[in-house]
Amino acid sequence: MKIEKVYMTREAEELVNNDRLFKQSYEEVVASICSSVWPMDSETFIINNTEKNGNGVVPVKELCYVMLEDTYNWFREKPLDVLKVEKKKGGPIDVYKEFVENNELKRVGLEFETGNISSAHRSMNKLLLGLNRKEIDLAMILMPVFELSRFLTDRVSNYEELEPYFENTEGKPFIYIGFNADEFSSSVPFIPKGSDGMSKRSIKKWKDKIENN
Amino acid sequence: MKIEKVYMTREAEELVNNDRLFKQSYEEVVASICSSVWPMDSETFIINNTEKNGNGVVPVKELCYVMLEDTYNWFREKPLDVLKVEKKKGGPIDVYKEFVENNELKRVGLEFETGNISSAHRSMNKLLLGLNRKEIDLAMILMPVFELSRFLTDRVSNYEELEPYFENTEGKPFIYIGFNADEFSSSVPFIPKGSDGMSKRSIKKWKDKIENN
Repeated sequence: MKIEKVYMTREAEELVNNDRLFKQSYEEVVASICSSVWPMDSETFIINNTEKNGNGVVPVKELCYVMLEDTYNWFREKPLDVLKVEKKKGGPIDVYKEFVENNELKRVGLEFETGNISSAHRSMNKLLLGLNRKEIDLAMILMPVFELSRFLTDRVSNYEELEPYFENTEGKPFIYIGFNADEFSSSVPFIPKGSDGMSKRSIKKWKDKIENN
Repeated sequence: MKIEKVYMTREAEELVNNDRLFKQSYEEVVASICSSVWPMDSETFIINNTEKNGNGVVPVKELCYVMLEDTYNWFREKPLDVLKVEKKKGGPIDVYKEFVENNELKRVGLEFETGNISSAHRSMNKLLLGLNRKEIDLAMILMPVFELSRFLTDRVSNYEELEPYFENTEGKPFIYIGFNADEFSSSVPFIPKGSDGMSKRSIKKWKDKIENN
């Protein structure tokens, strides 16, 4: 997979350019999404483009998550206190990592968006709430670009569709990453939809990290 | 129907308390939603609460719109320039009214939210974009409160569900209005789902106003 489009608010740019660990967090996300290949024995990500909405999106996300969790020590399902404790409503942030340097905590929240466009708006608002409440210091959203999304599950949103709203997060450290297939071809199999054929694995949940400490 | 919960950001409160026309716009929206009755020959809004998700929501919205359009001269489907002209993406604002006083234009955008919670996030972000781009001066969202929404179409979002995110719009003039039935009863008919049985009417579109000028 390759990164095709990136938008950083000025505040995000400052963090990534001036702080080694925030830069590292961005690079880990980029490396993880770029590590996705298809077919599984390929060296690159080649998508079958013979049928609109012909490919599933879950395995793409899953491969990225495996690398984030296993190689880079990110955690899944990090609840925000403002939602879980205070408002008692709303789900956790998708993926999360804490870095510590000189006793200073640096917290990054990531949503890998594979729902429809309104779901992408919710992800954006959840991360924004986390930033406003100072529960995270940097927010990222990962989405396919339009060119790829039209060959993925119907109604999966894309980078371009959310793009008009990026400016709503100006003033906050927010990064939007649009990824694309390396190649489009009629000679590879379709990516299965849902989690068909994927082996079960135990995900690295934030809850377990907290409880085991 | 009655108003049960209202949240105004400080900026919205200032507009409504200090400006006659912004106050009027708020009062028109409140009067329009409160004018909804059920059954149609009732003096109040009584909802059949014998079955979860038993009632439709479209007729409720429709009655409110009729009053906004016909009595108060609001317009439907107002496109934002930032979306329609600049980004060439995204739909219009649901309902819109312009007031003029001393050559000063005062523009109010309203979304009557009857979709799921992620759709409510999109409505919020669209209005916020309109405020940021100074295409509207005051934003309002109308939603049922939880107590009512559970007897409406499945997955219709509610005031309480979006409430944790209201603070994301602090600093901007934003009003959230939660309405509720006047009475819950087993002796009234269910509200039909979809637009079944509703007479067709021509809505008052912003486009037509512009084209006829």
